[in-house]
Parts: sequence; C-alpha cells; structure tokens
Amino acid sequence: MKLSLSFLPNISLSEDSKDNFTLHSPSFKLNLQQPSVGLIAAIKILCAEGATETELSELVLNTDGNSTLPQFYYYLQQFISLGLICHTLKADGVCWATMIPISTPYKVEFSEIAEDKKYLLSRFAYCHQDNHQLTLESPLSQAKITLADWRGAALINQLAQTQNCNTLTKIPGVSVDKAQMFLSLLLSAKMVSEVQADGKVLEEQSSTLAQWEFQDLLFHSRSRIGRHSNTVGKSYRFLDKIKPLPAIKPKMSNQAIALSKPDLEKLKQADTPFTLVLEQRKSLRVYGDQPITDIQLGEFLYRSARVREIMPRQYMECSNRPYPTGGACYELELYIAVNICKNITSGLYHYCPQEHQLEKIAERNAHVNTLLEDAQRANGGECLPQLLIIFTARFPRVSWAYESIAYSLILKHVGVLYQTMYLVATAMELAPCPLGAGNSDLFAAAAGIDYYAESSVGEFMLGSRAESLEFRI
Amino acid sequence: MKLSLSFLPNISLSEDSKDNFTLHSPSFKLNLQQPSVGLIAAIKILCAEGATETELSELVLNTDGNSTLPQFYYYLQQFISLGLICHTLKADGVCWATMIPISTPYKVEFSEIAEDKKYLLSRFAYCHQDNHQLTLESPLSQAKITLADWRGAALINQLAQTQNCNTLTKIPGVSVDKAQMFLSLLLSAKMVSEVQADGKVLEEQSSTLAQWEFQDLLFHSRSRIGRHSNTVGKSYRFLDKIKPLPAIKPKMSNQAIALSKPDLEKLKQADTPFTLVLEQRKSLRVYGDQPITDIQLGEFLYRSARVREIMPRQYMECSNRPYPTGGACYELELYIAVNICKNITSGLYHYCPQEHQLEKIAERNAHVNTLLEDAQRANGGECLPQLLIIFTARFPRVSWAYESIAYSLILKHVGVLYQTMYLVATAMELAPCPLGAGNSDLFAAAAGIDYYAESSVGEFMLGSRAESLEFRI
Repeated sequence: MKLSLSFLPNISLSEDSKDNFTLHSPSFKLNLQQPSVGLIAAIKILCAEGATETELSELVLNTDGNSTLPQFYYYLQQFISLGLICHTLKADGVCWATMIPISTPYKVEFSEIAEDKKYLLSRFAYCHQDNHQLTLESPLSQAKITLADWRGAALINQLAQTQNCNTLTKIPGVSVDKAQMFLSLLLSAKMVSEVQADGKVLEEQSSTLAQWEFQDLLFHSRSRIGRHSNTVGKSYRFLDKIKPLPAIKPKMSNQAIALSKPDLEKLKQADTPFTLVLEQRKSLRVYGDQPITDIQLGEFLYRSARVREIMPRQYMECSNRPYPTGGACYELELYIAVNICKNITSGLYHYCPQEHQLEKIAERNAHVNTLLEDAQRANGGECLPQLLIIFTARFPRVSWAYESIAYSLILKHVGVLYQTMYLVATAMELAPCPLGAGNSDLFAAAAGIDYYAESSVGEFMLGSRAESLEFRI
Repeated sequence: MKLSLSFLPNISLSEDSKDNFTLHSPSFKLNLQQPSVGLIAAIKILCAEGATETELSELVLNTDGNSTLPQFYYYLQQFISLGLICHTLKADGVCWATMIPISTPYKVEFSEIAEDKKYLLSRFAYCHQDNHQLTLESPLSQAKITLADWRGAALINQLAQTQNCNTLTKIPGVSVDKAQMFLSLLLSAKMVSEVQADGKVLEEQSSTLAQWEFQDLLFHSRSRIGRHSNTVGKSYRFLDKIKPLPAIKPKMSNQAIALSKPDLEKLKQADTPFTLVLEQRKSLRVYGDQPITDIQLGEFLYRSARVREIMPRQYMECSNRPYPTGGACYELELYIAVNICKNITSGLYHYCPQEHQLEKIAERNAHVNTLLEDAQRANGGECLPQLLIIFTARFPRVSWAYESIAYSLILKHVGVLYQTMYLVATAMELAPCPLGAGNSDLFAAAAGIDYYAESSVGEFMLGSRAESLEFRI
C-alpha cells in the first residue's frame, strides 16, 4: 500500500510562449517562478495520476540533480498549505481512500500507528453519499475522505468500536500495515481519536467538545463561512430549474374571517415610548379572566406581521412586512391554534398577511388539543395558552436563493419575529411567551401540510394580561 | 438469511399473582388482555433473541391452535405501530443490520427487490458512531439501522453508486438473496431510493426535497420534536459532570474603555413612539460623513445588551438583559470591529455587558481588516461598515442545560438581538444592517478564542446615518 499525492481534479498546468508556467483552477492562479525541469515533471505527475512523495523527489533528483530539491519541497509545502493536494491510499492499484482538503491554510501530519495503540471513530465523523461517492466528513476536520473501495467502509464500521491495527485485519484483504496506513490517514483528518489506557477517548477530554451534539456542530460548521469549501450565500442555484414560490402562500381555506386593523397613524404619534416597551418586555404565562379579543388579535398581527407591500424582483417576488428577513424572502407563515378568544371559535387558523384575515383550517380536534397541551407542558405553565401562534417556514422561499445558510437564516428570522411580537404584545398590554421547541410532525399533520415543503420552526403563546401593566415611569 | 423480530432492548414482560401480564419499559406500560399461552410464549421470544414472523406464528399455532392467530397478529401490529419492534437481518447466526424504530406511529413495509431494479443511497442518509455502533440514520426515516457486521457498511459503500442486487454480490459473503433482503430493509427505512430508467432518483423527483441541503434537514428534524426519540429541552445532562460557565464572561483584557450611559428614565418618558420605530426600521448600508461617536455606541449597547441583573439560580447563574433568551442563558457575547468611531481607536474590542465597557483585544490588524472587508462584500455595500458587531455564542451556556435544541435556541437568540439592535438603532437615528453569514474560523483566530467553546454566529453593521430620519408622521 502506498500514499499517493495528486492535485485536486480541477487543477491544471499551462505554459505560454515565453516559457512561463502557471498552475490554475477555476478559482485560482499561481505563477511558478523559474521552475526547474524536474519540478515541472513532478507537477505534471501531480496533475495526472499522482505519485508518492518519495517517487516525486527521486524524479526531481534524477532530472535536476540535488540542487533543486529544496525548490521542490518549498513548492510542495505551498501546494499543501493552499489546499491543492489530495492524499490517496492505493493498494494493488486500487484506491481505498482519498483525503481531499476543504479548508485552508491546510495542515497535514501523519502519525505512526503503533500496534498497541487503540482508536475509535470520532462521534463527529459521518459517512454519506456525496456526488455518488461515500464520503467521510467531520466538523472537526480540514479534509473530507472519499471511500472508493468497500474495504474503507468496512474498516470504518469496525472502528465504531475500539480497534487497533491488528484487530482491523478481520476485514478480508486488510493486513497490519494497510490498517496502519488507513488509521494514520483517518487520524490526520481527525476522523478517529486515540483511546487511552483508561478507555477514554482523547477527543472527549475537552469538556467543551463533550457538550456539542453531533448535528449542532455539523450545522454550525457548515452554515458559517470557514472550515469547508461549500458555497455560502445567495447563489440562486435553482434558477431555471425550479420555479420559485410566490411571495404569498395561496389561500388555505374559504372560511375566512376578516380581522380588524389598528389606527396606525395614531399609534405612530401616541404609542408608548419605545424604550419603555423594550424595558418592560417580559414573558407572561398566566392570563386574565377575560380572554383576548378578536380585535386585539387583529391589531397584534397587523402590527407584527402584515404584508405592507409586494415587490416583484429580478428573480423572485418579494414582500415587505414590519419585521425584517434576509433578502425579503418572508418564508414564515403564521398559524393560530385558538383555545379561547372572544368572537373567534376554537380551532386552527392560518393567517393571510396580505388580506389580513384568518383562514379556518380545522375545528378544535385532537391535533389542536395536543398542540395546546404540548405548549403548556413545554413552558411549565399553569394553564393552556389562550392562543398558540405556530410559525412555519416555507423552506424553499429561502433555500431557492441561499446556499449553506438557508436554515440558519430561517431560525434567525424566527428570533426576529419573536422579539417583534414580544414588543407589540408588551405595547398592547398582552401576555406574550415564546417556546423553545414544538412538534413539527404533529403540526404538519394538524395543518395538512407537507413536512418538507413547510413545517413548524417556532411557537409563541399569547393571551390577555392578568394584571394591567403599569406604564408609568 | 432471515429477518428476525424482537422487542427494543429495554422492554420486558412481567406477570403478577393474578395471572395479569404487563409489557413495560422505563417509559411505557401495556396490559395484555387475556393473552393466550401461545401469545405469551411468542412475546417471551420477542423479549429475548427474537424470531421471524413465520416462526412466531407457527409457535402460536402449535401451542394454541388456529383460534388465537388473529389475536397474535393484532398484538404484533400494535407492537409495531407503538415502535416496540426491531427488525434484524441475520445470516449464519451473525447480525448484519438491525432496524430500530425512532418515531411513532411506526409503519414498516417491505418491498420485493426485483433483480432489474436499481437503487442509490439517499443523500440524506448518514452513518456515524453512536454508542459504539455504526448507525445509519436519515431525517427521512422513522427508524435507525445499526450495522453490527462490516458487510453492512461495505454494502452501504457500494450503494453510493447505483446498484442492483446482482452487482452487490461483489462484497465477500453477499449472495443475491442476501443483497435483496438488505436492500429491502434499507428501502423500507428510506435509506436508499429507487433509480428510474432515466437515471433519476425517485427521491429527487420532489422539487421540495431537492431544495433541502443534507445538514439543514438533519438539523431541522433533530432540533424539533417529532420523528426521533431523543430528549428535547432542558435536561441538565451535564449536572455534576461539568461545571456550568458563569453568567458573565471573564475579562478579556485590562485595556478597558468605560462607555457612557443614556438617561434611561428620560427615554422611558420621551422616546419615540414604539410603532413609529417599528414602522421606520430599515437596513441602511451607507453612512454619514461624520462617524458614529463613542457616546452613541455606549448608548446603543446599553439600550440593547447591558446586564440589568445577575440572578443566582438553582443550577446555573443567570442574568437579565434588555433582549430575551431561553432560560435566561445569555450565551451571546458582543465584539466590535471598529473601522471608524469618534474617540475610539480602530481595532477589535469585546463588550463587557456587566461593566458596560469595551475591552480592547487587538489593534487593527490583518484579521480585523478582513472581517470588515468580508462584511462589506457580504452585504454588497459601497463602503466598509463604521462598526461591525460580531455576535459569538459561549455554546456551553446553552448546551449544558438544553438537549437537542441548544444550537437552534442560539440562532433564535441571534435573531432576537438583531431586531432589538435594529429598533434601538432606528430610535437613535443610526444606520443598522445585519448580515447573513460570517467566517467563524477567522473570527476565532482574530479574537484568540477556541472555536468549539465560543465562535461567531451573527454579524451586525452599524454606523452614523447619512440623512436624518424624519420622525414625522
């Protein structure tokens, strides 16, 4: 088995009429300063099938003599640091695994794998199908590893339990030295961690890392810039492939209730001072004897979440509402599970922010009861909320435009709307309280929506206030 | 190869003195109504090593005769629906794979795998080490599959490319019928998808699913209640294991700048009406000729993010600030990359919300320049922001207390603080604009913090306003 070095697939070497050599990829260009003949020969091999470091240095040595070896090592180190070099384990002409840099400055260091040292697959490492290759990734790693041969996956399977290079030879075709080289590759990419004499995994010695859940750290690392090479931000990758959703969700029911609107001009003049609202805001989980009214609900939704304007934009239709969202996507939809509200019968409603009306989508059935009861339990409350406002996201509104950050934007929007509603409710002397979690599958069933197209991402309880807020200073 | 049924490991059968049989787990209890002798025998096998459905029904038939078979099938169907039954593929006494329900009502259906049908590993399926077993999971699935034998992982590796039951026999020990049963198990758990004649994967025919990124859907499904069996919410799972972090981050530097405070009592009385602030809020990316001042920055931070109170609570120290967070965790820290600000030299600062002061942690170095330039690029702006406020999260403040929802709470908090800052900036006639993404690795390097303990999760640009906001109605 050997460890072969080669360039990333999209890198090539070109030469102009003046003997200037340039290494380039679609996103990068590097002029080589007076490269020796041996260096050019080595680079051509790196652009093609690759070779071991020893083979490459011997080629340079045999072509140029001793003098240009430092130049070769200098460039090789630069190529590695720039994240241009893949390391491939090959046995008998078959690729077992290829380690591909995904972040820079890239560092790679291979350790000796002693026969008595034990290893375990990191709980942050995961294999998945990416572009028709089984790929091992980890939010701890600067590289990903493609597993071209089934033996690689078989070894990964064994490493879910503590192994050393001898126990791994259970897999057909795996010798001790092959197991050592494979482990060395995985270790350098932080896909496995050493198991210490006391049985503890080195990686878990950090109390910081111990407190991360796998999916949280994966999501953090991939939804932020850094430590990966994915596109981040607006890329419109579905342009001309999938039609973007309209800005306003089509009506869900013909049973519509028109909501009343506040006198906004009067409020702009005479509403409570902003600082007083901000400083008085707090979570309230108990309610007044009199339920919230349809008029209050209408005012609350109008002030928090109505559509102020529809804007046709170049790629997709957008809108403008009182709370901000990235790219004016406004993917959040509001549903109201009504427990008790003056003049509105109990049941489940969808809020149409354009028409400012409620569309009734269900009576108070078992689903609606469970939603209300779950909310009470989640918040440790003494009673059911008078109203439970459920936020869903029409996910493709965001993911159609944004790459890598779509879902993180959606959760930030949930927070933005939480605070908007908190403040509007405070100014209106209502009792507001958002929740930390809800059941998205249950809500999809309750509202009859497709979980993948739209499901719940936030919950906000609202009701009348038990005691009058003393808006005094 | 056979498909064996058994109960989840934590389920057992007990019998009281009155011949009442109860099936129970730590979280569940089911009284069996007059079970037949054969049914009890079958249940005892399900509690132990398990057996195929045929073996179980033959046992009932041989013990009780024909009459109680319907009762057996009724109960079996109930057990499956309640998510109590695992399906294990065994060959020659070796377990290859076990399918374990993780959500209810659980449905399982096995399809025939014809020799000409082709399959591909779902791009939402992933293998990872969970509790020392290689486990296949997917946000599309109601089950997880543990792969006890390396052949399972080897087959998964092959399925990263389109396969049929014949091509899978390349793996040692895999016959066509074994490949068929393995594929049938994976298909029933939605871990593979059928590939159609035109080469397209059935799963990707839905334009909705096509627009989900793997890590987004995984995170959505696991950070919300539903379709998994993980704990969600406050669980304090590190109590007595890891010390919780203090409410206030220790000082980062001795170079402190005291910030001025606004007259809050005056603002409570005479601040702009809340509705006017809410309605006037908008993103501004150009700035006035005169830079923002130290006095404005002090007022802005005081109104948005100061500590109002420290509250010692039962498990961890909490605090109270103008914006809300779940469980009063207040994990967000604010850093200011100062491009230009009256009376504050350019550089990187940490905001101490308790002392209301800035701690200088770096001069305007290359990192700080890159942060400011990235912000300009991210927002397509004409100029560098006067100030870039970077939000980090001290992650363990949340993950110490909350399970499954920690990171989703953090992003909601980022949104809550975005809107708070937006409104305070609007009321102060400043120019606010949050950003969709930033580089967490870069910021960790710039501030000298450990990426896993604390890294950036939000960015907010701030500066003086180019034109006066007309606070008229």
